[in-house]
Amino acid sequence: MNLIILMESDRLDNERFCLRDNRAEHIRDVLKLEKGEKVQVGLLNGPVGQAVVEVLTPLEVVLKISELRDIAPPEPIVDLVCALPRPQTLKKVLFTSAMMGIRRLYFIRAGRVEKSYFQSPLLGKEKYTPHLIEGLAQGKLTFLPEIHILDRFKVFFDAILPVVEKESEINPAKLVASPESSFNLGERFDKNIRRIIFAIGPEGGWLPFELEYMEQAGFRQFTLGRRILRVEHAVTAALSQMELLLKLK
Amino acid sequence: MNLIILMESDRLDNERFCLRDNRAEHIRDVLKLEKGEKVQVGLLNGPVGQAVVEVLTPLEVVLKISELRDIAPPEPIVDLVCALPRPQTLKKVLFTSAMMGIRRLYFIRAGRVEKSYFQSPLLGKEKYTPHLIEGLAQGKLTFLPEIHILDRFKVFFDAILPVVEKESEINPAKLVASPESSFNLGERFDKNIRRIIFAIGPEGGWLPFELEYMEQAGFRQFTLGRRILRVEHAVTAALSQMELLLKLK
Repeated sequence: MNLIILMESDRLDNERFCLRDNRAEHIRDVLKLEKGEKVQVGLLNGPVGQAVVEVLTPLEVVLKISELRDIAPPEPIVDLVCALPRPQTLKKVLFTSAMMGIRRLYFIRAGRVEKSYFQSPLLGKEKYTPHLIEGLAQGKLTFLPEIHILDRFKVFFDAILPVVEKESEINPAKLVASPESSFNLGERFDKNIRRIIFAIGPEGGWLPFELEYMEQAGFRQFTLGRRILRVEHAVTAALSQMELLLKLK
Repeated sequence: MNLIILMESDRLDNERFCLRDNRAEHIRDVLKLEKGEKVQVGLLNGPVGQAVVEVLTPLEVVLKISELRDIAPPEPIVDLVCALPRPQTLKKVLFTSAMMGIRRLYFIRAGRVEKSYFQSPLLGKEKYTPHLIEGLAQGKLTFLPEIHILDRFKVFFDAILPVVEKESEINPAKLVASPESSFNLGERFDKNIRRIIFAIGPEGGWLPFELEYMEQAGFRQFTLGRRILRVEHAVTAALSQMELLLKLK
């Protein structure tokens, strides 16, 4: 936990927040802070800054904001289209996506996604949000990714994508990771890119029909390397490569 | 499990291997193979290829090699120097390092490493090897990383590093990830690099003294990006960036 994320539901008044969960525990038992000491905080979907420990009991920690400064959301702005993984993997994808600064997550159906995955209780907002918050606290970010769950494959490409592209001022680059592609990300990347829609398939990969459908929708294939990565690591690998490519002269 | 890793201890004869653990389970319950069907296999530290399911019972699976072809170990050859993490994280670092094709792992002591971590039963060879094998099976690699555990910080730099550099024909690039560095990996990277010694600090980072000591030993600092990554994700991010940089023209 590199940043204590503060939420509206924690708020006591204009500048005070009361914590009773693993964040309070972290302040007490890991950081071992005492009353009057400072800790790095971030307001969910808002600025980061510092807060002073005002109350510290075994039951609760009250923080008083002492300084706030706005931070820019990460660039490039990346939306992830991800074949819904099994629940254990989903937790890791939620954590990693928030840690890496993904803006929106579309979990979609694919031929190699088991139907039962869409029945997972983890798809409830109150269940998945803690994993996102944990990721933000790791990556020192405050922007909560938006989650969209689509129990159809085509719905994203036929109904959502055209709307997203229409409302967006900047034309997004559309990329799909595919171990079989002979192109690396550098060959698919333009340094002026500021928005990316990035798709990752299920364990076992997309079906040929699905890859063709995505190609028709403008998605270009690239490989992350020769190794076969787990979904959560593919997110890390791709975002790290994107950030590097934006920095290279 | 994208590759069934076969070990000498599984061997029945020249071309037959008997599995009774989670690999047998994977063949039966996930791949749902039947007698006579083929599966991708890799010999530990050796070639990859295919094998035929010869025996399939609830107790065991016997595979008969049908084809083998040599594969080259990954390039660049990367040795990882990692401040020993807590056991839960260590499992993930072992898995990820094997998945990403790390050649050697040196787990070392640092100021922000708790002493108790060196008492973990996970540091026993029979305990850590399964996590490495699992990583190889994910990444479709067969080269088992070598593990070295050093309960001192300086020992690696004073005693091990000079020997490694002396016996190596190619001078390794020495790099240390540091969130404070203003250099990205591209600025620290030479396309002719074929060997890398890459260091990752503990949660909470290296001490200033440690960073200076590493700098004296020739390690150059770079940042993986603005986000603070968990150790296992830092391994993925760095290796993905290295592989991309080698491919860029």
